[in-house]
Amino acid sequence: MIHAVVMAGGKGTRFWPLSRESRPKQVLPVVGGKTMIQETVERLSGLVPPERTYVVTGASHADEIRAQLPEIPPRNVIVEPAGRNTAPCIALSAAIIKKIDPDGVMAVFPSDHVISKQDALYKAMDAVMEGIDKDRSALGVIGIKPHYPETGYGYIKTSATLGGPAVKAEEFLEKPDLATAERYVQSGNYYWNAGMFFWRADVILDEIGKSQPGTTTAVLKLAEAFGTARFDSLMAQTYPSLASISIDYAVMERAGAEGRVIAAVADPGWSDVGSWRSLYDLVEPDSEGNRARGKLIAVDSTGAFAHNDKRLVAVVGLNDVIVIETDDAILVCHKDRAQDVRQVTEKLKERGLTGYL
Amino acid sequence: MIHAVVMAGGKGTRFWPLSRESRPKQVLPVVGGKTMIQETVERLSGLVPPERTYVVTGASHADEIRAQLPEIPPRNVIVEPAGRNTAPCIALSAAIIKKIDPDGVMAVFPSDHVISKQDALYKAMDAVMEGIDKDRSALGVIGIKPHYPETGYGYIKTSATLGGPAVKAEEFLEKPDLATAERYVQSGNYYWNAGMFFWRADVILDEIGKSQPGTTTAVLKLAEAFGTARFDSLMAQTYPSLASISIDYAVMERAGAEGRVIAAVADPGWSDVGSWRSLYDLVEPDSEGNRARGKLIAVDSTGAFAHNDKRLVAVVGLNDVIVIETDDAILVCHKDRAQDVRQVTEKLKERGLTGYL
Repeated sequence: MIHAVVMAGGKGTRFWPLSRESRPKQVLPVVGGKTMIQETVERLSGLVPPERTYVVTGASHADEIRAQLPEIPPRNVIVEPAGRNTAPCIALSAAIIKKIDPDGVMAVFPSDHVISKQDALYKAMDAVMEGIDKDRSALGVIGIKPHYPETGYGYIKTSATLGGPAVKAEEFLEKPDLATAERYVQSGNYYWNAGMFFWRADVILDEIGKSQPGTTTAVLKLAEAFGTARFDSLMAQTYPSLASISIDYAVMERAGAEGRVIAAVADPGWSDVGSWRSLYDLVEPDSEGNRARGKLIAVDSTGAFAHNDKRLVAVVGLNDVIVIETDDAILVCHKDRAQDVRQVTEKLKERGLTGYL
Repeated sequence: MIHAVVMAGGKGTRFWPLSRESRPKQVLPVVGGKTMIQETVERLSGLVPPERTYVVTGASHADEIRAQLPEIPPRNVIVEPAGRNTAPCIALSAAIIKKIDPDGVMAVFPSDHVISKQDALYKAMDAVMEGIDKDRSALGVIGIKPHYPETGYGYIKTSATLGGPAVKAEEFLEKPDLATAERYVQSGNYYWNAGMFFWRADVILDEIGKSQPGTTTAVLKLAEAFGTARFDSLMAQTYPSLASISIDYAVMERAGAEGRVIAAVADPGWSDVGSWRSLYDLVEPDSEGNRARGKLIAVDSTGAFAHNDKRLVAVVGLNDVIVIETDDAILVCHKDRAQDVRQVTEKLKERGLTGYL
């Protein structure tokens, strides 16, 4: 059976002032009326029933996530006492799933990405699953067709076609510089790594154990306690001491070189929505080239983007300006400077304005 | 005795979204913690006691103004059933003052201007008053030393010095084009017309009667009814039919040509605060060149201006941007486009968003 694991540990500081330390991007309605994690779970609901859907998140967001996802059994929202990157999170989920379903297959998804063309995603997932059916030891990923040389994403280098959208994934490459990214996009063999993974629970657990044996031992004990009163205290004792390492670094780079990774390549309108600029690009402009969630009045202004749930925004004589309004703060940012929103949170810390973080 | 008349009929659409049809600039705390009309009346309080201070305003703002100025007798807040420009307003005040004090002198002030150097204003007012003491038929104005060729103000051309800051005012000139304004400023004989006037009540009433005899007849009847139950109904019957005309056009242009106007010239840090840009120029920048009423975080931004009473404003990668926040609307405007804020209110009307007007 397929089990879904939604990784919801992100902090989303680049979405200030909408996202805050206590309200990261995944629990906010960044696109549309539902929160990003609600969208993610809804997207998977045709594939995996709620009782086989797990969410891994931090202690400060667990209650909010349980409230936002009432269909998911509360215990399936697994609380990390401290974030340890993706490898321990995946290892723990794999151990729990393996215990419940020894032949279980896991589908791992980030909780805060956008997919605008679900059918394209489902088709790619089918191809990956088929590959895992044929070869139980295969590790599967989705490779996203790159539309431009993004330097903020990791890339997957592919080689031989395996039939349909499935290709061999050879190399997992970290965020490139612009010249390298341009070369990747031109070659046609490189895809964006969207952080979606598919594999048998027992297989990924073994793989993680090869480089992180301590993690595997610990998560097997935690899985034994899952669903009991001991689980939370055992998590608090052991989880924070696990090595903080990404699944790409712990497993995928090596497995790719070993020829064991299948990538299903797709163009599902994916974005990691890593900044207000990413979101800007996802919203269709009106006839004057402006984009708004709420009411926007533009006078001699084009390329404006307003994320405004409550207040009307008026822009006069300015192009390419992003305006974000919340109950206690307003961000006004040039669209090409969205990465620097992080500096606002740094300045808030410097000035002791921690209530805005 | 001196009587003060504060003209508070302004609409202030250029201060959207702070000012609205129901809350014009004069009843708002645009600069500092007090409202502009409170600042104006406080500025006059050393000169004229509250029982000799009159405010003329529209029906929709009278209650608010009475509440903001509890020291002024309620009946001294005179309600115009319809705005008829400055000549009828001044004629009515003059008739009321003349009835109470046949030798009364009037000092007329706009309610929504800024004076940052009060002592300079007081000195100029003393000079004007002295001139009226010497020549009971004189009409007095304050001429503001121009610091730059503003095209949004009227100008006063002066000639002979009358001693101290008093000069002869020869011509009252309407808003000039830029080349003309530059010539005015260079010549040194031209001053901004700040709309502050000083004269005996009986004299100005006669002067208005020369060009507007119907107005004089009507306001003398109204003055008879002032303080009685008949006043409001008589105002409603007669006032709206008076000719709508400015005091400059009705009296000052002709009186200037006749050599009867004294101007006391001064540099009292005056501004009519006609736009957000005017206000921008009145606020001292911080070390990064930014100006804010509330909390402002600027990242690679200079020349920002935030009028924010409640929300923190962050500006990233933008220069010379004005950000105004209110409970239901946010304005983001390039500082050189502040005059075009009026277009926002026009667009709001077009789109039927009248709740924001």
